[in-house]
Amino acid sequence: MTAQRDGVLRATRRGFIAASAGLLAAACSDERAASAPPAPPSPTDRNRTEPFFGEHQSGILTPAQAHTYFAAFDLTTGKRDDIVALFRSWTTAAERMCRGQPSEPASNGAQSPATDSCDVLEVPPSQLTVTFGFGAGLFIKDGKDRYGLAGKRPAALVDMPHFPGDQLVEARSGGDLSIQACANDAQVAFHAVRQLARLAYGVAEIRWVQTGFVADFGEHATPRNLMGFKDGTGNPKVDDPALMDAFIWVGDEGPDWLRGGSYVVARRSRIALEHWDRMTVAFQEQTFGRQKLSGAPLGKPAEADAVDLEATTSDGNPVIPENSHVRLAHHTSNDGARILRRSYSYNDGVSFTAERWPPWHQGMEYDAGLLFIGYQRDPRTGFIKIFERMSRFDMMNQFVTNVGSGLFACPRGIAAGEFLGQSLFSTA
Amino acid sequence: MTAQRDGVLRATRRGFIAASAGLLAAACSDERAASAPPAPPSPTDRNRTEPFFGEHQSGILTPAQAHTYFAAFDLTTGKRDDIVALFRSWTTAAERMCRGQPSEPASNGAQSPATDSCDVLEVPPSQLTVTFGFGAGLFIKDGKDRYGLAGKRPAALVDMPHFPGDQLVEARSGGDLSIQACANDAQVAFHAVRQLARLAYGVAEIRWVQTGFVADFGEHATPRNLMGFKDGTGNPKVDDPALMDAFIWVGDEGPDWLRGGSYVVARRSRIALEHWDRMTVAFQEQTFGRQKLSGAPLGKPAEADAVDLEATTSDGNPVIPENSHVRLAHHTSNDGARILRRSYSYNDGVSFTAERWPPWHQGMEYDAGLLFIGYQRDPRTGFIKIFERMSRFDMMNQFVTNVGSGLFACPRGIAAGEFLGQSLFSTA
Repeated sequence: MTAQRDGVLRATRRGFIAASAGLLAAACSDERAASAPPAPPSPTDRNRTEPFFGEHQSGILTPAQAHTYFAAFDLTTGKRDDIVALFRSWTTAAERMCRGQPSEPASNGAQSPATDSCDVLEVPPSQLTVTFGFGAGLFIKDGKDRYGLAGKRPAALVDMPHFPGDQLVEARSGGDLSIQACANDAQVAFHAVRQLARLAYGVAEIRWVQTGFVADFGEHATPRNLMGFKDGTGNPKVDDPALMDAFIWVGDEGPDWLRGGSYVVARRSRIALEHWDRMTVAFQEQTFGRQKLSGAPLGKPAEADAVDLEATTSDGNPVIPENSHVRLAHHTSNDGARILRRSYSYNDGVSFTAERWPPWHQGMEYDAGLLFIGYQRDPRTGFIKIFERMSRFDMMNQFVTNVGSGLFACPRGIAAGEFLGQSLFSTA
Repeated sequence: MTAQRDGVLRATRRGFIAASAGLLAAACSDERAASAPPAPPSPTDRNRTEPFFGEHQSGILTPAQAHTYFAAFDLTTGKRDDIVALFRSWTTAAERMCRGQPSEPASNGAQSPATDSCDVLEVPPSQLTVTFGFGAGLFIKDGKDRYGLAGKRPAALVDMPHFPGDQLVEARSGGDLSIQACANDAQVAFHAVRQLARLAYGVAEIRWVQTGFVADFGEHATPRNLMGFKDGTGNPKVDDPALMDAFIWVGDEGPDWLRGGSYVVARRSRIALEHWDRMTVAFQEQTFGRQKLSGAPLGKPAEADAVDLEATTSDGNPVIPENSHVRLAHHTSNDGARILRRSYSYNDGVSFTAERWPPWHQGMEYDAGLLFIGYQRDPRTGFIKIFERMSRFDMMNQFVTNVGSGLFACPRGIAAGEFLGQSLFSTA
């Protein structure tokens, strides 16, 4: 709802919602709305909020919301102070938006440029999370120490190796900063990045973005990817703190700003869906190493059953093929390496494609597939370790083209009163 | 849930849902699942279904679902019978999917290509609608009467005129057939088109597609577009049958297959959001002719207030500017012409853009904007009539680039036992 204050109309997303639900008898200003009692529990997750401040950034262990808008930025400023100012404003704006408020208060009739674009003004918080990451370019770029941070580049923030089959497009890869906005509403996720990008005018520019989605399979079900298979069954359990400390959170080996943070690998993997749809289900299952409908590992009846990589058929062949996705991804095949996958499907329409094998089709094909997002404590012993072999041997590779890739160090969570990455800048 | 039948596991989306909700004690085959009692009413609209059979096609008067996947196809066959067979299979598959079932039953381990891609197997129906349209090319293309239908082209299915400012891209325009799939889940909408496109192999190929979304503003609120303004306030009320008969449904002037159908104009309008975000709110309001936060027409206090195009300020200027969007779109400015807008926002990431005016920016800009979708009884007295003047004078045009356009005749609804467009083919 709107309220008269300082002679202008002001509104908040939360204000609108609360009022339309009849919770507030009187109109309220945006700051008062923030301290209003929380809405009663809703049967939907539209009204849920995720904490912005805390030990860890949200959006990592948070169960995947329905939509993401992942953006990578190039820093264009030469001044360290600009970055500090940007991170201060990003912190304030992101925290507001995660509470369902505009990035800055908005008003009708203002004679100044719009502060918030207002396109989700009445939309509930939708469980928005905003997760920031720092690319290598924040520390050093083309050999230049732009901000006096070169000495603080963490060892694990490596340059990603080239993997067999990579067809990386420069304009879809890299970046000095990253923002992963996730929400149960596509527009809320886009809105968040759009406001943050506006606050970065003159300091940082969008380099690439990727939208993603995951369908609603129910709270305790493993979602399916566009290949029609359940994806994420073998993920480490996020409610096991020891597992998270071991594999996801950076520990004492990292600097203060990164301790309790993580590393994210984001990759755009186009999938040849028209090909895949022409394969027999039996072949698809050999490729994955799992049954299509049930999600059970081959040779087992249920999705939750442990993958048995030793099992053999009566003629001595492995039940789960040597080159199947599940075998190559499994931690016992990778010296125990584990990462937390938090991937989305993406769908960017169609583009002209010339096929190089039967059915030799030329024409419009889906530009759709997987926005792979994986979190880990150290990419050298996480994604890179696992993908070294997968990129060589995975049967699935024939359907997948990796066209974009980024690696970012995600700082630890922000405490109230702090700003993003503060201790990276405050220490000498 | 899965059930043993004919020695293979079979499953359905609805089967999975019902079983996981504990509604079915025993496993069920896909056909039995279809006749199971409906799930209890849900507080969300995930479980809602829209009727597929009926007097009119769904997806026209249906209040906009959260997502759309709009696809246009080129017919590649030379045979009329292929089209009849395609429309039969499309009818069967679409009707199944609208009930939350796979397009065809699916099974683990099948030695044949997958029938349904299975990527939304456990996802509720999500209010899926599938709305078919016929482009001019079904009747005549490049002067050729490919299917003996040239004489049946409706007079209102015109070639669209070129409008001032149109920057139409051939690969994003036209098409012989259209499918508008809408659902409350992005993956359900994509899934529907993907199955129908697979059934069209050898007969029709995707020409262009466009995804779209609208945020959840609540059931009775007007949604906002990416410009942050409420969009659709002036739409004719869909619960007024006389209004719908007058402006939306084709009447006795049309052939049997089209009587009770409509015409859809679909246009991809990229919006220069970075520019728009730099404008003052006051300027934005002059452009729209409405207040930004409240949606009220300029000079009025509330969104629902009638637009007063006669009102003047104390110095004699119109309160609602001559070139404002709301004035030019208003039916009193267009000899009473009205259309039913059912537009979505779209977001295709970013692309390199060189600005032609201040701030003379070159770099990545949002490829986002409006997927305009408008239904009408006759495009000559509907969209074309209205857009003739708007394309010349609307202040908003400076922020909008129209890059794609299609016009399709949407047949009347399909009765159970019929197939899409049947009477077009059954009469001599």
